[in-house]
Amino acid sequence: MRVQVAILGGGPSGLALARLLGLAGVEAVVLERRDRAHVLSRIRAGVLEWGSADLLRAAGVGARMDAEGQVHDGTVLASDGTATRIDFRDLVGRSVMVYGQTEVTRDLCEALDRDGPRVIHGAEVVAVEGLEDARARVIWQDQAGARHEVAADWVAGCDGFHGAGRRTMAAGPLKAFERVYPFGWLGVLTERPPASAEVLYARHDRGFALASMRNPRLSRYYIQVPEGTRAEAWSDDAFWDELRRRLPTETAEALRTGPALEKSVAPLRSYVGEPMRRGRLFLCGDAAHIVPPTGAKGLNLALGDVRLLAEALIPACLSGDLAGVEAYSARALDRVWQAERFSWWMTTLMHLFPESGAFGLRMQRAELAHLARSRAARQALAEAYTGVSL
Amino acid sequence: MRVQVAILGGGPSGLALARLLGLAGVEAVVLERRDRAHVLSRIRAGVLEWGSADLLRAAGVGARMDAEGQVHDGTVLASDGTATRIDFRDLVGRSVMVYGQTEVTRDLCEALDRDGPRVIHGAEVVAVEGLEDARARVIWQDQAGARHEVAADWVAGCDGFHGAGRRTMAAGPLKAFERVYPFGWLGVLTERPPASAEVLYARHDRGFALASMRNPRLSRYYIQVPEGTRAEAWSDDAFWDELRRRLPTETAEALRTGPALEKSVAPLRSYVGEPMRRGRLFLCGDAAHIVPPTGAKGLNLALGDVRLLAEALIPACLSGDLAGVEAYSARALDRVWQAERFSWWMTTLMHLFPESGAFGLRMQRAELAHLARSRAARQALAEAYTGVSL
Repeated sequence: MRVQVAILGGGPSGLALARLLGLAGVEAVVLERRDRAHVLSRIRAGVLEWGSADLLRAAGVGARMDAEGQVHDGTVLASDGTATRIDFRDLVGRSVMVYGQTEVTRDLCEALDRDGPRVIHGAEVVAVEGLEDARARVIWQDQAGARHEVAADWVAGCDGFHGAGRRTMAAGPLKAFERVYPFGWLGVLTERPPASAEVLYARHDRGFALASMRNPRLSRYYIQVPEGTRAEAWSDDAFWDELRRRLPTETAEALRTGPALEKSVAPLRSYVGEPMRRGRLFLCGDAAHIVPPTGAKGLNLALGDVRLLAEALIPACLSGDLAGVEAYSARALDRVWQAERFSWWMTTLMHLFPESGAFGLRMQRAELAHLARSRAARQALAEAYTGVSL
Repeated sequence: MRVQVAILGGGPSGLALARLLGLAGVEAVVLERRDRAHVLSRIRAGVLEWGSADLLRAAGVGARMDAEGQVHDGTVLASDGTATRIDFRDLVGRSVMVYGQTEVTRDLCEALDRDGPRVIHGAEVVAVEGLEDARARVIWQDQAGARHEVAADWVAGCDGFHGAGRRTMAAGPLKAFERVYPFGWLGVLTERPPASAEVLYARHDRGFALASMRNPRLSRYYIQVPEGTRAEAWSDDAFWDELRRRLPTETAEALRTGPALEKSVAPLRSYVGEPMRRGRLFLCGDAAHIVPPTGAKGLNLALGDVRLLAEALIPACLSGDLAGVEAYSARALDRVWQAERFSWWMTTLMHLFPESGAFGLRMQRAELAHLARSRAARQALAEAYTGVSL
């Protein structure tokens, strides 16, 4: 097979890139290791920056999001029984869109089914070669074990932290920056109306808690747990009890519990690999960087990469203009580091870090009190949260 | 001796409190351990918030400050060769006053010499008793070893971290919050015009540097040095070389070096003791809290305590109204924690912390880039620096 762009990974970033390239008339193919049902069942973040929502609209996949998504004009930071609302509309004239990553993926899948480019599921990429040659070669294996090759002008590694894209990039000079947090998030999805109308981040001396939602009938809650915690070690009852302790009273009282549709532990990590391009290979999304989930930047950052990469590849493929290709890594990393800063800051502000001691706890409280007092501080937060400053 | 208020410590906070009480007609006395020459030679911070300057004006000791002090409308944060100016006037409509603590102390001394209350030098306080009695007793010893007693309705501990005030407070229930930073500031004072027109904070991979000034002919420079460094281990030449490396090129080129009039290492520490009052004893300034010097909050925080304490003691002494006395500790601590947060944040942002690694360095750079981009972030910094949010 011969294409202009081979896309590794059929998650939301690979699919969105394929969609943008397809709309522009660039020949592309998506290679996805897992089957379609698996991709569609992954449960991830649900908060889209307005710029991300606009990208999906521009890609012609915004209709269901605009019909079913919930526009949120703010978020809430709680600590020690007090809550500070960050009023996005008032502070930066923007909102965010609450619409699950699962739904974004489904909308993109349906658009690609209808219009192409083709998505090949069950395609395990085993090698990416020829990054400095006239053409790159992607070698992949189907589920029966047969080998195939795609020749491509450009390869986009949208296949996550453990994918072939990052592996290939890491074979060359790659600077890695990382922080692993000594805790994880235990999350529960339940079919009950959310306890808080807006996403609520709660700092508590027992640990962080998050009250969020997928839609008006589906709630998603998290509590900070020590590193290495297994989800099975927590009964539903124990989860709800601990969550209630950490939420502000009013939210705890509004909490409606139900059977856990899904319960899992996610580790928290900050990671950036530099650069994001080597020859004919580009990295995009989790393949290049990981943010902790605090502040919901993961998917938004990936879609930001997708936008820059589409802007780079479309002129490269249609007219041979390589300016965007040359600029991609630096332009993407500039935005990535700002999102990394924000995610690290919100994580540091809201979580319990046993090693930071009593003084550290007071710094968190003082910083939250500062946010409550200073409109400028809230505005800086709102800019980063909604993505206007990225 | 019998007074309404016995003030322990004749540094700037004790003298300022004495001045405010004296103007209001409250009988007070100041007991200072060291001699007058020693007090007047202490070299400390030189940046006054506008509110601090106003307090000195209201105390009738602002004339020389207004004649000789330098009004600064901004400050500069530098990193990796780029500099971001924080324009106070534009951002918050305020300025700061650069006027050495030594000068403030001298102005207060002269006012007290003229108008009272009396300052007794060489007075070592050995005990503060009767905090819960009808009257407190301050026992002090003169330089000949003779014991004296002052009976007072109220005692103000303005005698610093190692003074009798904090020692007495610590005998009761006191919660201490502390962070010791693993480095110090090596400072040099020299009689040369300053390299930077405004105070300049420089983050550098070799460590922090600060270019500041006392007046247009007297410069004060600092470099971050490892914990335990002795000032004598650094020759003047070695200091200037290291300083030049860490300053942005333009500032390094403007640097005019001269003989070190003073060279010393100051440790960096954050400390808060709660509460700030027990019975008839109040703590004020360094006796209650220490901030690292980054952001120049130490003297300003002390003068903020002085203002609150004067507002508490004057009605208590003149009319028996105890509302301010009861509220003092909570009101002061509220402001203290905000200044502690700011000083900790600026320290963390600008210094080299070897344990935070390559990711930590990138977070500092990203935060400085964020300040360069976001007016709201600069505004929040300007609010805290000039004191409008405290």
